[in-house]
Amino acid sequence: MSAGRGLWITLEGGDGTGKTTQAALLEEWLRSQGWKALRTREPGGSEVGVLIRDIVLHHRGDIAPRAEALLYAADRAHHVATVVRPALDRGEVVIQDRYLDSSVAYQGAGRVLDADEVRGLSLWGAEGALPDLTVLLDLDPVIARRRLDSAEKPFDRLEAEREEFHRRVRESFLTLAAAEPERFLVVDAAQDADEIAAAVRARVATLLA
Amino acid sequence: MSAGRGLWITLEGGDGTGKTTQAALLEEWLRSQGWKALRTREPGGSEVGVLIRDIVLHHRGDIAPRAEALLYAADRAHHVATVVRPALDRGEVVIQDRYLDSSVAYQGAGRVLDADEVRGLSLWGAEGALPDLTVLLDLDPVIARRRLDSAEKPFDRLEAEREEFHRRVRESFLTLAAAEPERFLVVDAAQDADEIAAAVRARVATLLA
Repeated sequence: MSAGRGLWITLEGGDGTGKTTQAALLEEWLRSQGWKALRTREPGGSEVGVLIRDIVLHHRGDIAPRAEALLYAADRAHHVATVVRPALDRGEVVIQDRYLDSSVAYQGAGRVLDADEVRGLSLWGAEGALPDLTVLLDLDPVIARRRLDSAEKPFDRLEAEREEFHRRVRESFLTLAAAEPERFLVVDAAQDADEIAAAVRARVATLLA
Repeated sequence: MSAGRGLWITLEGGDGTGKTTQAALLEEWLRSQGWKALRTREPGGSEVGVLIRDIVLHHRGDIAPRAEALLYAADRAHHVATVVRPALDRGEVVIQDRYLDSSVAYQGAGRVLDADEVRGLSLWGAEGALPDLTVLLDLDPVIARRRLDSAEKPFDRLEAEREEFHRRVRESFLTLAAAEPERFLVVDAAQDADEIAAAVRARVATLLA
């Protein structure tokens, strides 16, 4: 993606790790520094993507696992081609909630499909495009869950299973980050939002310099 | 696909080559012989597929070529997993209008994407499933076009361009058939519908014996 004049930043991590808050804080800071910033997300960051998001997230009834992976890759392909690349070509900073690392981490954790194959689909769809920076908001899923619930009640049996799944998602993200240390910034998401934002800003500032 | 007890037949060829007519005649004959037959199609042969078909065929505005290829592969993955395989497992004969050869022929003719990559997506999605028989209804696109128009007027410039495209589609189908002679039955679709149906029945009968 080095061809674009802009900067492409993706935010990754489980639900409840603060991606939306950090995206908003980063956008605010970038604008205060005079940068044009575009906030977007996957799935659903384009007009076609909204239709695909509606299928993958809201269809009643099962979707075959490989079909689901292909739908996410289709959303990604269209989003990169029609939203992300044009913004980068205009010299903007793209702040994106989730990218292909999410597909790999969730599929890897689900163990239904081969993570490398899932990554390969997305890379094919996006013509190999990778972000300049990926911020991984790393958090114990028990804490993330409490944040989402706003209640510190213990897990029931079903929730405990989900906890195990979310632990594997977290591990998958950390494995991905370890494999590409130059692209990833891993942040302890148990910190205050302002502390996290400062760490993200520091890295983004060096990339913009 | 040899695991299923049924028989899987796909019909391929350009528009206007008579696939729908032949599917109906084959279904009628199979039922008269006491077989359970399921007629289906791609895209749109499943509930999720109808939603995907609506995007690829009816979305106003462009869809990025790779996104489109991934959407066709997603439709195919879900269709094979939820409609085709279960019917074959029940011992039925599946008669299907278009399968992955259509994606390969149209993409190959469009020259936008690599045909082998497009084939690879579909095979990944369908876990390598290939039909027992693929009937290619082969027809000069000028004749196919006249059938669709029901008028023998000459082509204007835009239609002539389309003719060149449809010639390449035809060539792609023939190349695919030549590469897999055991799977393909190539039929001259300029013949009467009854003659074609007889040729198809003869081959299907040997496969059912």
